[in-house]
Amino acid sequence: MQFLILAAGKPALGYAREGVELYLNRLKPFGKAELKLVRDGSSKDVSERLLAASEGCLRIAMDERGELWTTEKLVKLARNWQMRSVRRIAFLIGASDGHTEKLRSRCDHILALSKFTLQHELALVVLLEQLYRCHTILAGTPYHR
Amino acid sequence: MQFLILAAGKPALGYAREGVELYLNRLKPFGKAELKLVRDGSSKDVSERLLAASEGCLRIAMDERGELWTTEKLVKLARNWQMRSVRRIAFLIGASDGHTEKLRSRCDHILALSKFTLQHELALVVLLEQLYRCHTILAGTPYHR
Repeated sequence: MQFLILAAGKPALGYAREGVELYLNRLKPFGKAELKLVRDGSSKDVSERLLAASEGCLRIAMDERGELWTTEKLVKLARNWQMRSVRRIAFLIGASDGHTEKLRSRCDHILALSKFTLQHELALVVLLEQLYRCHTILAGTPYHR
Repeated sequence: MQFLILAAGKPALGYAREGVELYLNRLKPFGKAELKLVRDGSSKDVSERLLAASEGCLRIAMDERGELWTTEKLVKLARNWQMRSVRRIAFLIGASDGHTEKLRSRCDHILALSKFTLQHELALVVLLEQLYRCHTILAGTPYHR
């Protein structure tokens, strides 16, 4: 099971870049997470790029209007993906003006990290922290603060 | 109306420290946000310190089991606080083992930033970003990305 995190544009905020790096490093021992950045642009262009880059993956779009999961729910789903041998799970973070309806309709889940509108680079950090947390729980290893 | 953000212990993660600094700086022109750190410790000790430091404030505890607000809801509440001349609003972020029942019962609102369990330094960044976003909306100024 591999987590593929897809986002539009390079993080421009220093702290977000650092946070992304930190959690990607922490995810490394689990060997199962990759961040791919697609070129930024209009909602339509970004959504097309995100769909192309996640071809063949189970797709989860990040959207504040989506379902709210607890950490336990994410872990439960991840266990289920492992059992069903789902190989690649893609998390799609849109541009600041969101995903298109077409993208939303092609996703297996629409997930809200928060009901608050989060700056999308911050959303990326929140998602990575959560994937790291999920992996520590799955592996039964302590969460490194 | 002044936002007082109370958290336990200094942020130890570099990216979180930077994020906190960034949003505190961005909040400065609005002149209405202050971060106060109380000493870290047990849930009981931290909760007592947070209660003492927020004496006389409208209190909002951060807790993943709390209510989920949209940005619009926060703005609506903030407008209401302004109208009612509520002078100080305190946001209370607990230690990693959470708030005591006593603290929860003395708060006006229990707010969940996410249903996910967020590392508490990251929660601080998410909260500050949201308060900055709220102020830009209240002031009708653009959100600086």
